[in-house]
Amino acid sequence: MAKRTAASKNGTAAKRSAKAQPRLAAAADDDPVIALDLGPAKLSPAMQAYFQKCQDKLGFVPNVLVAYAFDAAKLEAFATMYNDLMLAPSGLSKLEREMIAVGVSSQNRCYYCLTAHGQAVRQYAGNPLLGEHMVMNYRAARLDLRQRAMLDFAVKLTAEPWAVEEADRARLREAGFSDRDIWDIAAVVGFFNMSNRVASATDMRPNVVYHGLSR
Amino acid sequence: MAKRTAASKNGTAAKRSAKAQPRLAAAADDDPVIALDLGPAKLSPAMQAYFQKCQDKLGFVPNVLVAYAFDAAKLEAFATMYNDLMLAPSGLSKLEREMIAVGVSSQNRCYYCLTAHGQAVRQYAGNPLLGEHMVMNYRAARLDLRQRAMLDFAVKLTAEPWAVEEADRARLREAGFSDRDIWDIAAVVGFFNMSNRVASATDMRPNVVYHGLSR
Amino acid sequence: MAKRTAASKNGTAAKRSAKAQPRLAAAADDDPVIALDLGPAKLSPAMQAYFQKCQDKLGFVPNVLVAYAFDAAKLEAFATMYNDLMLAPSGLSKLEREMIAVGVSSQNRCYYCLTAHGQAVRQYAGNPLLGEHMVMNYRAARLDLRQRAMLDFAVKLTAEPWAVEEADRARLREAGFSDRDIWDIAAVVGFFNMSNRVASATDMRPNVVYHGLSR
Amino acid sequence: MAKRTAASKNGTAAKRSAKAQPRLAAAADDDPVIALDLGPAKLSPAMQAYFQKCQDKLGFVPNVLVAYAFDAAKLEAFATMYNDLMLAPSGLSKLEREMIAVGVSSQNRCYYCLTAHGQAVRQYAGNPLLGEHMVMNYRAARLDLRQRAMLDFAVKLTAEPWAVEEADRARLREAGFSDRDIWDIAAVVGFFNMSNRVASATDMRPNVVYHGLSR
Amino acid sequence: MAKRTAASKNGTAAKRSAKAQPRLAAAADDDPVIALDLGPAKLSPAMQAYFQKCQDKLGFVPNVLVAYAFDAAKLEAFATMYNDLMLAPSGLSKLEREMIAVGVSSQNRCYYCLTAHGQAVRQYAGNPLLGEHMVMNYRAARLDLRQRAMLDFAVKLTAEPWAVEEADRARLREAGFSDRDIWDIAAVVGFFNMSNRVASATDMRPNVVYHGLSR
Amino acid sequence: MAKRTAASKNGTAAKRSAKAQPRLAAAADDDPVIALDLGPAKLSPAMQAYFQKCQDKLGFVPNVLVAYAFDAAKLEAFATMYNDLMLAPSGLSKLEREMIAVGVSSQNRCYYCLTAHGQAVRQYAGNPLLGEHMVMNYRAARLDLRQRAMLDFAVKLTAEPWAVEEADRARLREAGFSDRDIWDIAAVVGFFNMSNRVASATDMRPNVVYHGLSR
Repeated sequence: MAKRTAASKNGTAAKRSAKAQPRLAAAADDDPVIALDLGPAKLSPAMQAYFQKCQDKLGFVPNVLVAYAFDAAKLEAFATMYNDLMLAPSGLSKLEREMIAVGVSSQNRCYYCLTAHGQAVRQYAGNPLLGEHMVMNYRAARLDLRQRAMLDFAVKLTAEPWAVEEADRARLREAGFSDRDIWDIAAVVGFFNMSNRVASATDMRPNVVYHGLSR
Repeated sequence: MAKRTAASKNGTAAKRSAKAQPRLAAAADDDPVIALDLGPAKLSPAMQAYFQKCQDKLGFVPNVLVAYAFDAAKLEAFATMYNDLMLAPSGLSKLEREMIAVGVSSQNRCYYCLTAHGQAVRQYAGNPLLGEHMVMNYRAARLDLRQRAMLDFAVKLTAEPWAVEEADRARLREAGFSDRDIWDIAAVVGFFNMSNRVASATDMRPNVVYHGLSR
Repeated sequence: MAKRTAASKNGTAAKRSAKAQPRLAAAADDDPVIALDLGPAKLSPAMQAYFQKCQDKLGFVPNVLVAYAFDAAKLEAFATMYNDLMLAPSGLSKLEREMIAVGVSSQNRCYYCLTAHGQAVRQYAGNPLLGEHMVMNYRAARLDLRQRAMLDFAVKLTAEPWAVEEADRARLREAGFSDRDIWDIAAVVGFFNMSNRVASATDMRPNVVYHGLSR
Repeated sequence: MAKRTAASKNGTAAKRSAKAQPRLAAAADDDPVIALDLGPAKLSPAMQAYFQKCQDKLGFVPNVLVAYAFDAAKLEAFATMYNDLMLAPSGLSKLEREMIAVGVSSQNRCYYCLTAHGQAVRQYAGNPLLGEHMVMNYRAARLDLRQRAMLDFAVKLTAEPWAVEEADRARLREAGFSDRDIWDIAAVVGFFNMSNRVASATDMRPNVVYHGLSR
Repeated sequence: MAKRTAASKNGTAAKRSAKAQPRLAAAADDDPVIALDLGPAKLSPAMQAYFQKCQDKLGFVPNVLVAYAFDAAKLEAFATMYNDLMLAPSGLSKLEREMIAVGVSSQNRCYYCLTAHGQAVRQYAGNPLLGEHMVMNYRAARLDLRQRAMLDFAVKLTAEPWAVEEADRARLREAGFSDRDIWDIAAVVGFFNMSNRVASATDMRPNVVYHGLSR
Repeated sequence: MAKRTAASKNGTAAKRSAKAQPRLAAAADDDPVIALDLGPAKLSPAMQAYFQKCQDKLGFVPNVLVAYAFDAAKLEAFATMYNDLMLAPSGLSKLEREMIAVGVSSQNRCYYCLTAHGQAVRQYAGNPLLGEHMVMNYRAARLDLRQRAMLDFAVKLTAEPWAVEEADRARLREAGFSDRDIWDIAAVVGFFNMSNRVASATDMRPNVVYHGLSR
């Protein structure tokens, strides 16, 4: 089976030759970014600005954006939904949304999302252990009732969505969540069930830098 | 537990009183549209036009849009991603994308998506049985190798995303799919794994009219 | 692998040649009735009368009977047990027995039984939606406590029979079922766990006509 | 919760008082025979003769018959189907049919059927170990290819009937089974998936004597 | 695939030739003891004495010890841990520890451990039926609350260890177990989850004699 | 529910009062070490030396040893078996044994073992990413065929030990493993299936220091 090159790390760069580069142990972990060979599209000005902002703020462009950059419309749709869900005002804190992201991704054993969002939990929590708990088994974290109920709902909705019913919503309300909060929990759970599958289907690789951050 | 009113069927209507309306057998199946009480937002002109287009073309606004209409940004992000995935040019036909939608939703036993997209398969295929096969057990359909490989991948990616690997992508390539097609399959699988969970978490109800269409 | 002819649709007809008939899209969905090549037996007078009664009353002979007609004793044993279970006096209504049939068949994803008995639920209920609920996810139906308890028991007994215990029977008694009713629930659940497997093992195909009835 | 008396061990006997009898360790294991209180029906002459034949030949009436004896029609339907399946001429030996019975019952962890049919395997095989293999894990038995293929099919059809397809039938044909044999395998698998569930739902208890026979 | 000889039944014997011995039905069930070809080590004096004690007391050396005898250090580590767990003073009776052993082994369907420890339950209980209950489905045994709680914990810890939490320990405490007892339950559950896997991985065969003992 | 003190971090220290110490975020993650209240035993001279060696070499005593220190015989049995398995000569490198440990612990979602042995993989591999791969999804690591076969076997033996058979051993032999290597793989898989359950049953907490090491 021919080795496939794939989305390059630089949205505007020419296609790399996988053969020309020896596989480097750690450095190569996210090269190629995905196991599909999709040429990069031309970024829209909005997306160019967004990539630049990532570069300036984080020091790198998250590989999921690099992966989606083969198609301008798909990249923009993904980024818009992501930013609304994870960053817009909500009854859930940004940390809580990242905790859901990692709890869901742990259930689905998604290497990309566990790495990227595990780092986000470590950072937002100011506590590297919380990230590890979410990655390994959220039940090992000593959470308050609210966050425990939130994650129990998230993991049940991930593992057996057909069995989620009014009693499950009632448990969230008893834990203090509003109906709008319940929507937001469901939407984040849904989003990562989507992203986990796009990442697994394409062998999407997280930027190597994530592993060492916020330890 | 107090009965909850929820997203109304008309994006601009006032909140209905659930108490004032006796539950009608079939007519009430999608009332309320979701089991969360979220007031409707003001639709943007673009979304007003979109709802009007649905009304004109289908004779109704799909309830998933009614459900998302409590928040203009979320509605727009959802509709944009949906329309790109399901309607934009792709190596997958629209029917194939709907077949994936229903195969995934069957694995997740999602009442909303099975109903709405089961109807779409019946319609696109010009064959009501194909919709029933997808709803009940896609293995019962007598598919060609391409579509069977596509659905096997879709259901595996839904049921055990952690186990999808190069060999699975290789099987798709052998069945004639390009790398771009593989992305599109993965993206549709992902999207319905998201939608199934938002629908199950909120008890989203499909428009009653779907059940009788394209039989 | 050679294509196999199988139980013919007419208990007394000669074996069709699968090669001589081009596969027609919808029309061919139940041809052959099963994927095993079993010559028809001579029907007993009782079974001839039964087939005639089906023809007169339904307009067709259900394919499950056609499938069993290769052996007179097996056909008679099946029909006798079926008619006792589904039609004899019981504390369960005929509709309730059909609801169990479909709930079990949905858990087992049995194309034959979902189609044939889904139609029966639509008909007995005078409500096409109830059939769809049973096929797709019985938890989506807005059932009273009695019928919900009945279906919860039926699906648990289907999915993990080893875990059914006194507490499960107690829940049925609390929902108003007598010990005799509990037997009848168990017997219908058992019967469809049998039929689902015979149907799946033989690729038994439901009469095409079912799909359009009682919509 | 009131203790319930149930099907008595003697089809014509009056209802025993559970309170009047101290629970005896081993002796009491099948008393009551089921956990439902169903008065015995009057046996038909045919069934009286059948019970007598069991008594004469085995020295006892199998408890499953005692359990069904509350209703003459159900008892007769059950016995007729059972005797045809397990004793009538077939390409499968009686031992093979019993091996399937136990393999299925092991998957479903059914105490009644493992005990009664485990004994039958020990007896027919003239080898107590084969019964233990079937009860504990059929993969531990050193079977020839034919019987291994038969049991692999039986257990797959039990555990995930939705996934059984032409390739599974092809494997049976390659192992030497005719289409009629495949029907018989499916029918025995189906029957014990039924019986396992009736037994589990009612806490049916095997005659104590089985445990010590054919060791 | 070449047939492999393996651990011999006599720790000091020369390697048997599998080809030279015709396979005997029952007699051959534990020959070879494991499906790996590992030459025996020289037993330490302590282990020689231990094997002799087994021979004197039981009339045979349990095959698990024969299997481990290829390496003196591993044999001694295994025997030391086993004897401490199963025989040293504990709030759990020896019978209770054997009940856990069989309940765990039933969940894992381990032929070796079900056979050897099923016999131990039959013997310690002075009741052959209790052994059969543990092998087939511990829920079929009519246990007191203490032993039922113990086995529920054991089987949950076996099947989904990630989900065991404070509430599970609390249930054991309510059933009368001390914290030390909980440790002992966990340790026996753990040990047999280890042994089940070593046995399954190597096709370890129980001494044939077990099957007939304590019936 | 009363808060329980438990195994202290110092084998000879008096029991801490959980109430007297406010819960500190990260610092408290391994306090108490387990959720059972078991007083420490007096360490044997051999174990005192072992603890001292840990302290000198690692800078801390692994909490699993602290947990077992309530009973001298159990501690010694555990340490002896552990050291033989993980450190004695074997065809498997120490890194490979640690990779199995983490792959198994990931399947079982064991917080203690993922943390402690994830660190060991990072250290032995000289590559922090390999530890993350093992923790998150071993299929994401780009392994050679030998190590991939080893982990596939380890995870299958963990998840469904009843299904491991000669074909699985054959795959290991084809990947270059000797029969002795297969034993060692099985033994390490078994050991961590034991340890994972003891850790989960007792809420065993890894030393906080592990999280930051070898990043």
